[in-house]
Amino acid sequence: MALLEWGDGYSVCDFCTAGRLDLIKTPPIYDFVHKTLPEFIGCDVARVTTGAREAKFAVMHSLAKENGWIVMDANAHYSSYVAAERARLNIALVPNTGYPEFKILPEKFAEIVENTKKKGEVVLALITYPDGNYGNLPDVKKITKICEDYDVPLLVNAAYAIGRMPIKLKDIGADFIVGSGHKSMASCGPIGVLGMSSEWESIVLRKSSKYKNKELELLGCTARGASIVSMMASFPAVKERVKRWDEEVEKARYFSSKMEEMGIIQLGDKPHNHDLMFFHAENLYELSKKSKDGRFFLYRELKKRKIHGIKPGLTKNFKLSTYGLSKEEIETVLMAFREILGIA
Amino acid sequence: MALLEWGDGYSVCDFCTAGRLDLIKTPPIYDFVHKTLPEFIGCDVARVTTGAREAKFAVMHSLAKENGWIVMDANAHYSSYVAAERARLNIALVPNTGYPEFKILPEKFAEIVENTKKKGEVVLALITYPDGNYGNLPDVKKITKICEDYDVPLLVNAAYAIGRMPIKLKDIGADFIVGSGHKSMASCGPIGVLGMSSEWESIVLRKSSKYKNKELELLGCTARGASIVSMMASFPAVKERVKRWDEEVEKARYFSSKMEEMGIIQLGDKPHNHDLMFFHAENLYELSKKSKDGRFFLYRELKKRKIHGIKPGLTKNFKLSTYGLSKEEIETVLMAFREILGIA
Repeated sequence: MALLEWGDGYSVCDFCTAGRLDLIKTPPIYDFVHKTLPEFIGCDVARVTTGAREAKFAVMHSLAKENGWIVMDANAHYSSYVAAERARLNIALVPNTGYPEFKILPEKFAEIVENTKKKGEVVLALITYPDGNYGNLPDVKKITKICEDYDVPLLVNAAYAIGRMPIKLKDIGADFIVGSGHKSMASCGPIGVLGMSSEWESIVLRKSSKYKNKELELLGCTARGASIVSMMASFPAVKERVKRWDEEVEKARYFSSKMEEMGIIQLGDKPHNHDLMFFHAENLYELSKKSKDGRFFLYRELKKRKIHGIKPGLTKNFKLSTYGLSKEEIETVLMAFREILGIA
Repeated sequence: MALLEWGDGYSVCDFCTAGRLDLIKTPPIYDFVHKTLPEFIGCDVARVTTGAREAKFAVMHSLAKENGWIVMDANAHYSSYVAAERARLNIALVPNTGYPEFKILPEKFAEIVENTKKKGEVVLALITYPDGNYGNLPDVKKITKICEDYDVPLLVNAAYAIGRMPIKLKDIGADFIVGSGHKSMASCGPIGVLGMSSEWESIVLRKSSKYKNKELELLGCTARGASIVSMMASFPAVKERVKRWDEEVEKARYFSSKMEEMGIIQLGDKPHNHDLMFFHAENLYELSKKSKDGRFFLYRELKKRKIHGIKPGLTKNFKLSTYGLSKEEIETVLMAFREILGIA
């Protein structure tokens, strides 16, 4: 009846005997981190982190040197940039091709690595696959080859890939891969995954001199509590849905083509290869200018039709994803846009 | 009906317009972080972090210099030590007084700061208040005065204080204070709090050069999602329970005195000032040697009596807390120990 306990939050720590999160066997965190995850993302070594940004920072902080540089694509998530600043790295950005495709080209990546090497040591490169704005999937294998040629380790930020689409670090050939539990792996609460090839284990997962089993970059343990349990609980469904990726791409392409028929332009890769899409809608913008809702026009019009998810205040440019929507739902959304535009 | 969304985990990010967690007004995270928390822990500036250890690391990483030192008490949680190693600081430990009290004395703290200053710059000192083993509360005001005299900023690790007992950074006079949401603030999932005096804001909460409102050490945002919401939901109850701290201390002292009557020694401060207690039980150990359960003897005997919380495998030395137990529950636990010892 009576409870004697140290803390009062739910915590998997209560089950911990070996003194490290990833070694806990009940619930089976050990198997998940050391077998299931490495197999799923095709890497030698995996860990869970408190988030994708924290995973990126752990790698950057491990590899950072005074006056060191990182090369990253200009489509990178802000947290990649901020993590690099926190790690006190100098940052060189690989520009995209601009409107309307915003592509990151391998030859441009090579050029920036080449130029940056003249300024100092490039300790790491980062490519966003796909980016969170356009949902563009750059030619990551070519970029890996370039980084290899320049002897620069490469981190693939796959926050919108792992858990949505099939992706394996070994197929890509890069050094590190980062995923996001709450963004793409149906986890509750912030949690990230970090995968790497075994050659980096002793550097990124170096241990405390005093607490022999504690990994410094993970501060001993990371996603303590409900987040890791929810990731494990969702995993079987996530593993299954990844197999249906072709259908998701097909749906996205269909949706994009129908939006373009309405005069709304899909930016980024075309044909598109991912469910994340960025649309540019001059026609909606013109309508919004005449509406009393102003820049909340699109948000309110969609909300009226029970369609949620577009950020309030965006009408001219907006992002959306067709992930997991049924064909009927896709049609409902398309019809809503047609209605709003008065072409239904 | 249809959902268009970027991620699929629940996230307060959906409500974010200003681009930083602590600025979100619905749910009222802004008020919680900028008014409620600073008032509660008596500091100028507060933030939530992904955990107490991440808060400590953020401060250490901000203040670290090449060949810099940190002085911390030997009763520090392992994560304080690991965070300092991660921040590439040299570490000097202030020894405790050893068995049976394990106290950290201010004069010893002064001596170690003095000696360490001869080796290099001491960029930070850390005192654990209370520590998680003995529940000892060192004379933190004296230690603050010493650090002031040596011009060394002081971080108070109050992971087992904030949310349990009244504590305010301004009363102590130190520079930083760290709390733990899941350990002592009834939050679900890992979350920490970091408080500081305003002079440190521009250093520890320095912003990105490119993303002007993103704080580097927090990687933009920290405890995204359910953790912060659960901390806010629990806060009114936490605020109330802190007012009953005197009763908690009284209960702990009563429990300790009754345990000692059974020949079980309470280590650490005496009379005790906190609900966390460490017991040394030679008599239970002797019994366990005759039992087939061996070192799981105490765990199993308590479990039989529906008392949970002691770590499996500990019999000679064990920690427990009387926090939140009713007087009847305290008696139930005491009776269980008497029964196990055969003196009921």
